Amino acid sequence: MHLSFAFFIFVKNYSMNQNSTICAISTPPGKGAIAVIRISGKETYNICEKIFKPSKKEKIISKEKPYTIHHGFIHKNNEVIDEVLISLFKAPHSFTGEDMIEISCHGSPYIQQQIMQILIEEGAQLAKPGEFSLRAFLNGKIDLSQAEAIADLIASTNKAMHDTAIKQMRGHFSSELKKLRDKLLNFISLIELELDFSEEDVEFADRSQLKTIVNEIKSIIDNLLQSFEYGNVLKNGIQVAIIGKPNVGKSTLLNAILKEEKAIVSEIAGTTRDAIEDVIIIDGIQFRFIDTAGLRETDDMIESLGIKVTHEKITKAKIILWLADAEDCLAEINKGINDIKILLNDTQRLFVLINKIDKYTGEQINAKFGEIKFSGLNKNDRIIKISAKKHINFDVLYKELINSVLPEHQPDIIINNIRHYEALKFAADALTRVNEGLNQKLPNDLLAQDIRETLHYLGEITGEITTDEILGNIFKNFCIGK
Amino acid sequence: MHLSFAFFIFVKNYSMNQNSTICAISTPPGKGAIAVIRISGKETYNICEKIFKPSKKEKIISKEKPYTIHHGFIHKNNEVIDEVLISLFKAPHSFTGEDMIEISCHGSPYIQQQIMQILIEEGAQLAKPGEFSLRAFLNGKIDLSQAEAIADLIASTNKAMHDTAIKQMRGHFSSELKKLRDKLLNFISLIELELDFSEEDVEFADRSQLKTIVNEIKSIIDNLLQSFEYGNVLKNGIQVAIIGKPNVGKSTLLNAILKEEKAIVSEIAGTTRDAIEDVIIIDGIQFRFIDTAGLRETDDMIESLGIKVTHEKITKAKIILWLADAEDCLAEINKGINDIKILLNDTQRLFVLINKIDKYTGEQINAKFGEIKFSGLNKNDRIIKISAKKHINFDVLYKELINSVLPEHQPDIIINNIRHYEALKFAADALTRVNEGLNQKLPNDLLAQDIRETLHYLGEITGEITTDEILGNIFKNFCIGK
Repeated sequence: MHLSFAFFIFVKNYSMNQNSTICAISTPPGKGAIAVIRISGKETYNICEKIFKPSKKEKIISKEKPYTIHHGFIHKNNEVIDEVLISLFKAPHSFTGEDMIEISCHGSPYIQQQIMQILIEEGAQLAKPGEFSLRAFLNGKIDLSQAEAIADLIASTNKAMHDTAIKQMRGHFSSELKKLRDKLLNFISLIELELDFSEEDVEFADRSQLKTIVNEIKSIIDNLLQSFEYGNVLKNGIQVAIIGKPNVGKSTLLNAILKEEKAIVSEIAGTTRDAIEDVIIIDGIQFRFIDTAGLRETDDMIESLGIKVTHEKITKAKIILWLADAEDCLAEINKGINDIKILLNDTQRLFVLINKIDKYTGEQINAKFGEIKFSGLNKNDRIIKISAKKHINFDVLYKELINSVLPEHQPDIIINNIRHYEALKFAADALTRVNEGLNQKLPNDLLAQDIRETLHYLGEITGEITTDEILGNIFKNFCIGK
Repeated sequence: MHLSFAFFIFVKNYSMNQNSTICAISTPPGKGAIAVIRISGKETYNICEKIFKPSKKEKIISKEKPYTIHHGFIHKNNEVIDEVLISLFKAPHSFTGEDMIEISCHGSPYIQQQIMQILIEEGAQLAKPGEFSLRAFLNGKIDLSQAEAIADLIASTNKAMHDTAIKQMRGHFSSELKKLRDKLLNFISLIELELDFSEEDVEFADRSQLKTIVNEIKSIIDNLLQSFEYGNVLKNGIQVAIIGKPNVGKSTLLNAILKEEKAIVSEIAGTTRDAIEDVIIIDGIQFRFIDTAGLRETDDMIESLGIKVTHEKITKAKIILWLADAEDCLAEINKGINDIKILLNDTQRLFVLINKIDKYTGEQINAKFGEIKFSGLNKNDRIIKISAKKHINFDVLYKELINSVLPEHQPDIIINNIRHYEALKFAADALTRVNEGLNQKLPNDLLAQDIRETLHYLGEITGEITTDEILGNIFKNFCIGK
């Protein structure tokens, strides 16, 4: 009751805009063989009949079947603008749930612009970013987390990011949440019934069963919350710093890694590499090397900028690759480790890379470093003996980089959206209060309120509960045309 | 006979490649809401059935009707890569004339790349630039000049260029040529018949009628040849130089023009303006200002580079805007005109712009410049009194700029392709020889050879006659995916 009312208010605010017919260029900007312009809304067919002449003159576009393609010409004042194909979709069986037409035209920016101009002259409005997806959501074609997944999918640049987005778009996460909500909804209705009979002291909802379910839901939400760090890494990459004293081989290491991984990086055509970040992808996970601009060309030039740069790098990084020279004495290395560890928090990991081992035999290295335990390192830190120059033990380094990112139990469903994370966190807090309330046998109305709050936050994720502000924030980051 | 044999050889060379099934991303590169991947060739449906699962599981894609759209999923090793729509086309009713499918996927570069990879793994080949259009030509869907028009259409950045390309693509030029060829073909067969009966001295082809037709064709070809200069201007824009002594107002003029025309320039979204050229579009025609980098920011700074820069500008330009100061004495202006005219050839036009007229009354200006005829100017040159600062008489300047480009009689069909120009020129030469041959009553076999040559060159334009080399040259400049 409470919920459906909130939803009603929201829909009312948005319904005004939905009367318009919108259009946008949906393909990437610029020149290509073809481009696609999308139109959605009630006037779609009326507008298209004015500007499109089918090559079979007797055809009436609005009477043709949906999911069909038609050849013809876009014209303006009897001048032909382009020869096109149009694809027909009819409400509710379209992406937006409205009448839709897609115009597939020649990919000249001039033509794209001209067709957009004609559409707007005939009464269509330029779509706002994400407005097609917003309409799909408002018309119940997708839920909010699925809409968000579309944006993530389009932005995905690697397999891990792509797989998470595809799962979310196909509704795995939503259906999980729906199951949890349904279980709680059953109880809230029973408890609210008890409130109606409050003078009679009846108990329709089995409290011990409720407690079991609350704990079950809480544990699922906790898992989802834990997956966020991993999800975030998949989405944004993990920051890595390479540090060490001059001439220890930092640039050699960076260049060697970039060279080895070049084939993988270049697979992601169309992505722009950050000007000051070097990115490599191992097993679909992005590692972003911080502030390596100085390292790439020359060895250690940047060090002349002094210790300040190093401190900043360390603060930003999740993994610190600290290079030591195999020649260094153990006490010196140990002091270095302790100097760095002071600067790190619990979530940061230190990899001590003993470099230049190619200068020694395996026996010599074992004799020096075999049994040594450096003080100050914890279970997440690593010591790896490498040769940056000869690419020795890079496989070990890569494996440890990946391991430091993977959660102990890789979750089925991964969340990577800060909005979902926050909503789940609020839901978890509310559930904790439900649990406490049950233990302390709090009155039903307080219990009901906390359960309702949980329902509210879970509903916010999929959009069963939402506000104009939430929607505005979500859709403003979409491409135009989606 | 001769012709069809040449065509046969050529088709044979190309037919090998046509057995393959090709694929390409046809939308512009980069990120967008959606992207379209095209597949064409015999294996199109077999390949798509392996990688596409329709959402209605009972559907068999190859049994669905052409010109229909189907929803489903692209998958690889049972992992979903994307949710897509596919559009079906069947030979011969497709752009290429072959079986074709278009996959409309989410516009992430990663997804586009993944789908391309799957297609190639399943046996499709990456299409070469223009290979779809090449197949359309080889399968008789379009002629060669229409194929070239597609490339021009995609490259068009203004109305004039676009209109010429659309006309050519729709076959106006081709049908004109076809008419001319058909008329000649009739005669050549009669003359060749005469050759068979050469001992009997019969005359099947009416010589005076032939002469009329040859002259008629020659005059049409001459008109087409004359349209080339104009066509070329429409296609590539016209080069304009702004010159003049320091502080005469060159940068003020340039900035004023650019500012006035800004709305028009910015209409062409997606085009890259040349870093060192300022472009304005008046009535759909591009004017490219040469070497204005120095002018845009400050007044006359560039002049410190000396007279050499000015000379180079003048050499490149079709129109020279020479600014003089209304304060200058007439003798000085006349000397300037003569100094510049020495450097110009007959096709270049000099516009003498008397600037800063806002400092004087109309009467003063008339008294000084009203009746004056500067020596050295010819009928194509102009004197225009302007104020760059107050935008006075810009309308006159623009009108004269346009007039200097428009041909006296604007032709119905405009050619703008150097290949067509050359073929027409050879055809015209051959026709001149036919005419001479008729006057001199040359033997039939010589006459026949010149007519055949005319037919050959006209046929080259539309592709009735062609070679691998011509095709290679034409299609290598296309986008991939077209």
